Amino acid sequence: MDRRTRLIATFEEAKIDALLVTSLKNVRYLTGFSGSAALLLVEPQRTTIFTDPRYDLQVRQQVDCHVTVSTKPARALETALARRKIRRLGFEAQHVRFADHARWKQSLPASLRLTPTTSLVESLRAIKSPPEIDAIRKAVTLNSAAFDAATKQIRLGMSERELAAEIDYQMRLLGADCPAFDTIVAAGPNSALPHAQPGSKPLEANELLLIDMGAQVEGYASDMTRVLHLGQPNRRTNRLYRSVLDAQLAAVETVRDGVQAGTVDRAARSRLAAHQLDQFFTHSTGHGLGLDIHEFPRLAKGEKTVLCAGMIVTVEPGVYQAGRGGIRIEDTVLVTGSGCEVLTTTPKELLVV
Amino acid sequence: MDRRTRLIATFEEAKIDALLVTSLKNVRYLTGFSGSAALLLVEPQRTTIFTDPRYDLQVRQQVDCHVTVSTKPARALETALARRKIRRLGFEAQHVRFADHARWKQSLPASLRLTPTTSLVESLRAIKSPPEIDAIRKAVTLNSAAFDAATKQIRLGMSERELAAEIDYQMRLLGADCPAFDTIVAAGPNSALPHAQPGSKPLEANELLLIDMGAQVEGYASDMTRVLHLGQPNRRTNRLYRSVLDAQLAAVETVRDGVQAGTVDRAARSRLAAHQLDQFFTHSTGHGLGLDIHEFPRLAKGEKTVLCAGMIVTVEPGVYQAGRGGIRIEDTVLVTGSGCEVLTTTPKELLVV
Repeated sequence: MDRRTRLIATFEEAKIDALLVTSLKNVRYLTGFSGSAALLLVEPQRTTIFTDPRYDLQVRQQVDCHVTVSTKPARALETALARRKIRRLGFEAQHVRFADHARWKQSLPASLRLTPTTSLVESLRAIKSPPEIDAIRKAVTLNSAAFDAATKQIRLGMSERELAAEIDYQMRLLGADCPAFDTIVAAGPNSALPHAQPGSKPLEANELLLIDMGAQVEGYASDMTRVLHLGQPNRRTNRLYRSVLDAQLAAVETVRDGVQAGTVDRAARSRLAAHQLDQFFTHSTGHGLGLDIHEFPRLAKGEKTVLCAGMIVTVEPGVYQAGRGGIRIEDTVLVTGSGCEVLTTTPKELLVV
Repeated sequence: MDRRTRLIATFEEAKIDALLVTSLKNVRYLTGFSGSAALLLVEPQRTTIFTDPRYDLQVRQQVDCHVTVSTKPARALETALARRKIRRLGFEAQHVRFADHARWKQSLPASLRLTPTTSLVESLRAIKSPPEIDAIRKAVTLNSAAFDAATKQIRLGMSERELAAEIDYQMRLLGADCPAFDTIVAAGPNSALPHAQPGSKPLEANELLLIDMGAQVEGYASDMTRVLHLGQPNRRTNRLYRSVLDAQLAAVETVRDGVQAGTVDRAARSRLAAHQLDQFFTHSTGHGLGLDIHEFPRLAKGEKTVLCAGMIVTVEPGVYQAGRGGIRIEDTVLVTGSGCEVLTTTPKELLVV
């Protein structure tokens, strides 16, 4: 069943007769259109995309629905709606801005009831189709190749920022659309900040180096974290690393169709507790990814969402000790009927450079 | 007069007693906070920023207003509002999402009237302070240095995408936060698309190469377009280039405190008309820039906004001939009392490589 058909099947429960899609990622998911300006009207019998003349050629190449090109796409949509007999028009309450909603209330026919909806398309996006899985697999593979190429350039004294620039450059050379998020390169004590921004700190001997990076390929994201050590790690660091790896492997072990998302999180957390490290694990275990870097499901404490075959999630426990440093190990993982496939192929031992 | 004082001075006309600022760029402008999650409550007697524990240290270093750190900043804001005696709380209608507004309507005291406002902070941002001008000057200078370094690497056969990767890499090495927007590298016929995305097309001899790039430094953007020719240009191309340059110089000439924005646009358009090229100039002449790459004012046809000393705008006429190619020349320009200062120092003759 195609994506729009599955969406239309949710209209009855959402109490709407049609859906106005304004999130560009959702428009891309439903039509394939990758431009930066579009409105999509999904009706049971017909789907229409509204865009501007910059995308005239592109939209006709990419989509298989009705197309309206206008210098004022919002006006064209309003004109189209005035002609339709839609009673309840759903809109995406988490994407639409107050000012746009206020304008529609003014300009649309009074007989049309604007109805807020939540995550109708996002819910469909959680389970990936085979072509989507292929795209994410490409993004994962390219990301690992960029990691290999960039880490070969590591020299003591280079700054976090320079290494981040090198990573992004390698991704682009290998054909990524762009990085899937701001690349994190955090050396020494900075690795204890889960969302550190690469700065002027030089890479120094005998410290941890955390790299969290993802590539966007054909619109789809990958996400991977690896930790390196500059010079031979001491026993304490080795032990810490093995504990996090133990938790990551235990969490991956639980991933399969039918398991609650919270179960994966609990597996990581309880393994870290066995190593007396759970108090240093300050975020959730993972998240879905696809056209966005953060999608459904969340792999967090108590999360009851049931994992289904075709979901793609990250598994990324970490421990962060302020002033000392942090270790996180993250793979991109495909949920299957019999368990899961770890898409990330970069080795997981502590990389010594 | 400081930024928040100037903002509070607009409350009476906007019929509000306090403003809830949710745009992160506006929060940064008003407080200096550069993190990725914050809510700001500006009251005449007190300003309070709400953020989460990831930014505990950073927020206290960056801001000089009251700080509330909470794992649930939105909840903390609601609690604070329940205690205040605000009657009319302004919110940013162009930034707030419908779902957030709906939640506030539920959770906030019934005595508090949520009042939509438009561009209160954005209007202040149009005129830059000396430190902002310094930051943009740095961004402009860094951008030109990255242009010089990257264009030295140009070789026939390299793809648009590779050159774009090289440009972004050089910006980052020179210390930019990131590119201020997706770098445009468009070769040959692709240069006729004003918003081309760099692709796999190789750079070939005897064609135009359009580069539109900007660097973000200390949060502030720069923006510059230059056109190169791969090999010696013919007379037709030289003539076309000189016509666009003539229009760009004529437009820059009109920029000064007290002039309407539309006047600058008209200067460019009428010069192109004199060369019979105005029908190929399909966008507006320029835009303000600062924390965002597109800010007030717009330099467009008939635009009545009066330019003021301290505004920083782009001046970027272009001509685009489908199938052949396009030429755009763009500088970042500071409006002054006596005229303007072109901040961009990269030469404007057609660069032959």
